Amino acid sequence: ISLKVLGMIRTPYHECKGMPIQGIFKPDVMGYVDIYDEYADCLKGVDLFSHLLLFYYFHAVTEEKMIHQPYLEDVDYGSFATRNNKRINKLGFSVVKFERLERSRVYFTEVDILDKTPLLDIKPYVTYFDSRENMCCGWYDKHFRDGNIPERTILK
Amino acid sequence: ISLKVLGMIRTPYHECKGMPIQGIFKPDVMGYVDIYDEYADCLKGVDLFSHLLLFYYFHAVTEEKMIHQPYLEDVDYGSFATRNNKRINKLGFSVVKFERLERSRVYFTEVDILDKTPLLDIKPYVTYFDSRENMCCGWYDKHFRDGNIPERTILK
Repeated sequence: ISLKVLGMIRTPYHECKGMPIQGIFKPDVMGYVDIYDEYADCLKGVDLFSHLLLFYYFHAVTEEKMIHQPYLEDVDYGSFATRNNKRINKLGFSVVKFERLERSRVYFTEVDILDKTPLLDIKPYVTYFDSRENMCCGWYDKHFRDGNIPERTILK
Repeated sequence: ISLKVLGMIRTPYHECKGMPIQGIFKPDVMGYVDIYDEYADCLKGVDLFSHLLLFYYFHAVTEEKMIHQPYLEDVDYGSFATRNNKRINKLGFSVVKFERLERSRVYFTEVDILDKTPLLDIKPYVTYFDSRENMCCGWYDKHFRDGNIPERTILK
């Protein structure tokens, strides 16, 4: 299946070092995506939303692994049970906080994306569809439950 | 950018007619995805999660439009501001409720996906990363706020 690159994501993260494992752990860092001119019409109304779903391609990842030992764990999980980027298809997904739209540039915070990542799609975050209550989040729960944030949420 | 099909999604929806605009509006409908043998290792630990993110390809969609009039609206929005499936790259995304894992078949409910849709990725839903509070959901808010569910949430 062949997908087009719709824009280029720009962030202060030029390498994984210093990047949070998820954007909410360094919420003030700003990034933006420049939508290519031919797709600029897709942006109409995007500024009505407080949060966006970004879909992108992990361009800097060279390995596609099926089994991972997560950063916070000492046992192995399959890539469908982790958010590791060394996954088949290298398809990336982030919830980001919309900040502002300037022409065909979308500024956002809560960033966990490397600079120069190719954008594949943006969808609006719709809490009525995308949020659930009483969820069980597998091996993540013991690290994050009760508002705990593990010390090792920034990549070294 | 070229992506592999990792499995095949099977659901009772053979056409858009009768399908909800999002799976939570017909929560008991069951679907499953058969992961192809060569990718079965990716499934290890997926049964620890109550909800999964499915990434797939809108295989039955023939148009890629940048501007849409959403089902519930009478004005136009760009595809980055709607969840319409006639979008550039035809990249689909759903939150589903995990039910059970049988060999390399994952059963789930809260389905809004057509039968025989090609699967591109599964990620675990991690509420600490994927949920936010105090969100603004653009034109969706007036239809769904206060627990209202518009009558026209099933496609005709």
